[in-house]
Amino acid sequence: MVRNRCTSPVWQATAPVLAVHGGAGRIVPEELGAQRAAAARRGLSQSLAAGMTVLRDGGSALDAVVAAVLVLEDDEQFNAGRGAVLTAGGGVEHDAAVADGATRRAGAVTCVSGIRNPVLAARAVLERTPHVLLSGTGAQELARREGLAVVPVDWFVTARRQQQLAGIRPSDRAEPEFTGGTVGAVALDIEGHLAAATSTGGTTGQLAGRVGDTPLVGAGTWADDRSCAVSATGDGEALILSVFAHEVDALVRLAGLHLGAACQRALHETELRAGTGGCIAVGPDGTVAMPFTSAGMFRGAIDATGDPRIGMFTEDNAC
Amino acid sequence: MVRNRCTSPVWQATAPVLAVHGGAGRIVPEELGAQRAAAARRGLSQSLAAGMTVLRDGGSALDAVVAAVLVLEDDEQFNAGRGAVLTAGGGVEHDAAVADGATRRAGAVTCVSGIRNPVLAARAVLERTPHVLLSGTGAQELARREGLAVVPVDWFVTARRQQQLAGIRPSDRAEPEFTGGTVGAVALDIEGHLAAATSTGGTTGQLAGRVGDTPLVGAGTWADDRSCAVSATGDGEALILSVFAHEVDALVRLAGLHLGAACQRALHETELRAGTGGCIAVGPDGTVAMPFTSAGMFRGAIDATGDPRIGMFTEDNAC
Repeated sequence: MVRNRCTSPVWQATAPVLAVHGGAGRIVPEELGAQRAAAARRGLSQSLAAGMTVLRDGGSALDAVVAAVLVLEDDEQFNAGRGAVLTAGGGVEHDAAVADGATRRAGAVTCVSGIRNPVLAARAVLERTPHVLLSGTGAQELARREGLAVVPVDWFVTARRQQQLAGIRPSDRAEPEFTGGTVGAVALDIEGHLAAATSTGGTTGQLAGRVGDTPLVGAGTWADDRSCAVSATGDGEALILSVFAHEVDALVRLAGLHLGAACQRALHETELRAGTGGCIAVGPDGTVAMPFTSAGMFRGAIDATGDPRIGMFTEDNAC
Repeated sequence: MVRNRCTSPVWQATAPVLAVHGGAGRIVPEELGAQRAAAARRGLSQSLAAGMTVLRDGGSALDAVVAAVLVLEDDEQFNAGRGAVLTAGGGVEHDAAVADGATRRAGAVTCVSGIRNPVLAARAVLERTPHVLLSGTGAQELARREGLAVVPVDWFVTARRQQQLAGIRPSDRAEPEFTGGTVGAVALDIEGHLAAATSTGGTTGQLAGRVGDTPLVGAGTWADDRSCAVSATGDGEALILSVFAHEVDALVRLAGLHLGAACQRALHETELRAGTGGCIAVGPDGTVAMPFTSAGMFRGAIDATGDPRIGMFTEDNAC
C-alpha cells in the first residue's frame, strides 16, 4: 500500500518549471534536527536558483537540470559527487544520468571514481559518443578526453560517510541514520521541452561494481516530451525491477493516467518489489508531482510565477 | 515503419514453451551462405534441445533459459561467451541478464571478462546478492566466490572476431559482415512461470565500458508472469532508449495489446530512436512472437507438441 501522504493535489505550475530532490528515505523531524533540516533546505534552494536562472534566461531544460544537479553534487550533505556514501571496501563509486525529452536521447555513467561532477560525464556520453551508458575506466577516459575536472578519490570522502560505513554491522539491521540521498532534477523549459538528471553515490556498504537505478534509462531517469520527465530516488533495486520511471511514462502515454496518479501507481509497482522511494516528475503541461512512499523526501519546485516550494517531511505541503 | 515481414500470425504454443535467438542484423541468404546457415541452425537446435530437456523434466523456466543460453555462449559462432566481438581496444567484455517472472526479480552482469559463462554470473547476482546489476571486477569477484569457471581472456577470442575488428575503418561505414549476434531465450514452464535470459559481447569496436541493452532489466531482458518474457537483440542504444522489453510488457499489461502487436509497437518505438532489432517473447498463455525489423534474426521455438521451428531470414516461416 502506498503510504505516501503527499500526493494530492499535484501542483499545476507555469513554464518554465524546475523540480529537484535530494533523496528519499528515513527523513523525520525528530531525527533530522533543525540544523540539518535548515542546511538541506538551503541546498535545495540553491539548486533551484541555479536551474531557474538558466530557464529564465531562455536556456534549455537539459541545461537547467544539469545546473541544478551540479549544485547538489558539490554540496557534501547529499549522496552525490562530494559526500557520496562509501562502498563496502571504503571506496567511492558514482552513477549519473541525463535524459533529453526533446530528442529522447540520454547519457549515463556508472561506477566512476575521480570525476568531480559525474553529471557532466553523463552529458558527455549523450553528446560525444554513440553510446548511452559507459562504466568505470571507459567513462573516466571519456571525462579526461573532454577536459572534465578530475580530483583524487579522497576529495569525495567525508567524515560523516566514513562514520556511516563504520556503523554498518551484520548484527545491526536497523536503518542507518539518513542524511542526504541521491539527487536529481526535472525541468520544463519555455520551448516546451522536458529533461531529467540524476546523480548518486549508491548505497552505503554496497558491493563494488553495484549499479543502481540512477544511471539506468527508464529506471531512475527518464524524459520524453510526449509524456513526462522523471528523476527517482529510493531503494535502487526495487526501482530497477519495476522500471520505475518508464512505468510512469507508460501509465501516462499508454494508459492515459494523470501524471500524479501515474507516479502513485508506479510507486505501488516498486512496493511489489519490496521497495520504497519517491520521485519528482513534470509533464509537458507543467504538472509537477513529487510523491514518495518512504518516510520523507528532500524536494523542491519552482515555476515562472512563484517562490520556491521546499519540503522534506510528509507533513510539508510543498507538493 | 516496421519492415519486419515475419509477424503475423504469432504462434499459439502449448506449455512448456521455449524460444531462443542468436541475434538480429544483416542476415540474408546470399551473404550468409549455406554452410554458415546450417551451422547457425545446428546451434539454435542444440540450444532448444538443452532448454526443452529441462522443461520436459518439469524444470523451471529460469533453469531452462539458462540451459539454453549456456549452449549458445559456448558456441563460438554467436556473439556471447566464446566468440564474442572485440572492443575498440581488442578486448572482450561480456554482458548477461536473467529475469524470473515468478518472483519478478532479475540479476545481471556487465563489462565482465574471464567468466566462461556470463549467464551463470547473472544468475548468481539474482540468487546470491541483494543487487540486480554488478559490473566489472565486482561481478568477477562474485563469480570467483561462487566457484564459476574462470578462463583466460584469450580463450574467448576467435580469429573471425579479430578479422571483424580489423575490418572496421573510419572510412568504411558499410555494415560489416554479420555472423552470429547476441543470444537469448524465453520460456514458459508447466507451472505457468515465465523467464528470460540474454547474453552478449556487445558491438564490434565499442568503447571499453560501454553497456548495451542486454544486462538492463526492461531494455534487453524482462519477465513478469502477468504479461510476458522478452529477450531482445539489435541496436543496443535504441533498445535502451525505448526501454524495449518493458515497453512490450506495458503494452500488454497496461494497454491490453496482444503480445504480437505489443512487440511490433515496441519495435516501432525503437525505430523512432533510429534503431532496428528483434525479440523473442512468450506470454503466460503460450503465445510466442519473434518479430524483427532488421534484415534477419536467428531464431527458433519449440513447445510440448512439436518439432523445433527454426528460421533466420524474413522468408522463413518459423514464427
